[in-house]
Amino acid sequence: MSRIAYVNGRYLPHRHASVHVEDRGYQFADGVYEVCEVLNGHLVDERRHLDRLERSLRELFIPTPMSRIALANVLAEVVRRNGVRDGLVYLQITRGVARRDHAFPPAGTKPAVVVTARRSDRKGQEALAAKGVAVITVPENRWPRVDIKSTSLLPNVLAKQQAKEAGAREAWFVDGAGFVTEGASTNAWIVTGGKTIVTRPAESGILRGITRTVVFEVAAALGYTVEERPFTVAEALAADEAFITAATTVVMPVVRIDGHAVGDGKPGPVATTLRLKFHDFSEIF
Amino acid sequence: MSRIAYVNGRYLPHRHASVHVEDRGYQFADGVYEVCEVLNGHLVDERRHLDRLERSLRELFIPTPMSRIALANVLAEVVRRNGVRDGLVYLQITRGVARRDHAFPPAGTKPAVVVTARRSDRKGQEALAAKGVAVITVPENRWPRVDIKSTSLLPNVLAKQQAKEAGAREAWFVDGAGFVTEGASTNAWIVTGGKTIVTRPAESGILRGITRTVVFEVAAALGYTVEERPFTVAEALAADEAFITAATTVVMPVVRIDGHAVGDGKPGPVATTLRLKFHDFSEIF
Repeated sequence: MSRIAYVNGRYLPHRHASVHVEDRGYQFADGVYEVCEVLNGHLVDERRHLDRLERSLRELFIPTPMSRIALANVLAEVVRRNGVRDGLVYLQITRGVARRDHAFPPAGTKPAVVVTARRSDRKGQEALAAKGVAVITVPENRWPRVDIKSTSLLPNVLAKQQAKEAGAREAWFVDGAGFVTEGASTNAWIVTGGKTIVTRPAESGILRGITRTVVFEVAAALGYTVEERPFTVAEALAADEAFITAATTVVMPVVRIDGHAVGDGKPGPVATTLRLKFHDFSEIF
Repeated sequence: MSRIAYVNGRYLPHRHASVHVEDRGYQFADGVYEVCEVLNGHLVDERRHLDRLERSLRELFIPTPMSRIALANVLAEVVRRNGVRDGLVYLQITRGVARRDHAFPPAGTKPAVVVTARRSDRKGQEALAAKGVAVITVPENRWPRVDIKSTSLLPNVLAKQQAKEAGAREAWFVDGAGFVTEGASTNAWIVTGGKTIVTRPAESGILRGITRTVVFEVAAALGYTVEERPFTVAEALAADEAFITAATTVVMPVVRIDGHAVGDGKPGPVATTLRLKFHDFSEIF
């Protein structure tokens, strides 16, 4: 649990961390966010997260609320004040507070900024990775602009809940053509032919994951081939391995899809190696 | 401007009306809302709005936060405390406050309830209706569950802003087959052959507007024929009239679509009559 949150210029005890009822994030999902891993008290791949954040803001025409340096200082301070050594930091920026009206508020409306941080259960995560996780598949039903990391996450919520009720950790969205797009909060991957890693191109239909980007580098260094192309659920079930990636889970082996085993039903060597080597390639400051 | 807001059991001055940063409405757009017209201090079609609200909550598996009578009392009290004679009341219910995690929070998590109210400029609205409004068309890019009145409104925000920048009041979403679905915050209608009113069926792809439902009754009483079928932009441009409906605008004539005049470019008799007679058919308590 985050003990101290940053809210619009103030560091507040978590229970007093609030935003106005007319914050456009609350009324319109008119905001963006990032989740960054914290390792040994340091942010992982912060530069890339802030790059993506700035892109999300630009795509939605939300002004940058503060300089990158100032924002990085806030992130570091929230991590420090919460005593987070291993965990995550959550950053949300919305179009600010204004009288409810769909169109953008008057120029000069200040974007709202919220940052929280919390510890993660690293041991639990490692235990989970050693066992692998189950995923289910659900029809893709999100808007096309999922390349923007917006808080418009209701379909993701419903998909994740459906996964949970099915005893799974993640739901993979499957598009009209039968191809997996991505998970509700992760990117989706398979391993074929022992050394070929397959994941959907990030040009459209998915979020360009930061962990995804780093995995490309890890894979190249380890001599794996990466193919950026869509894959079907049938391909995934016939694959050697499957895995998901996100800042909070890093590389997580997938051992079951819709109740069917992937490969021998155990975490495979490629996913396990990528997970092990991941932080050698991420930027940690 | 709302002066007093109801927030989770308390009536608060507007500037102190806040929700927690981990309210799922803020982080996930995990909530629903209603906007109800207030006329002479009374709520218009409250019963239908509360029916639809309960349906939205059911579809998202959000528990009902309080009895219908209690909620109606809150709505009335917020209207009263804000001294709203003619205006609107806004009600939002989210899945409540919980540690950030996509899946639903633990059973027993209390839904969050926010109600605000404000006066509207009825004279300004009538002046607008006498002139008619312009709409633009944009590609449909919302998720398929727009039948749920959720706060997942980012595409609506972007469409409305695009309309505003084009000097228009509304954006009509157009689906892949070239048919108008609905406006960013209104239902869309055309009038053909003088006495036939055409609007898209509400089975899927649009929200079942309360004002839309009442307009069906008004139309029937006035001897108009209503055809529930999708229509194209070309049909709308060739129509005698076009109009939009919503609780906040009632029936509003559309006189331009993408810069082209509809009919003679002036509000038509059908839309004008429907607007005039609307409140004879709505439930006002």
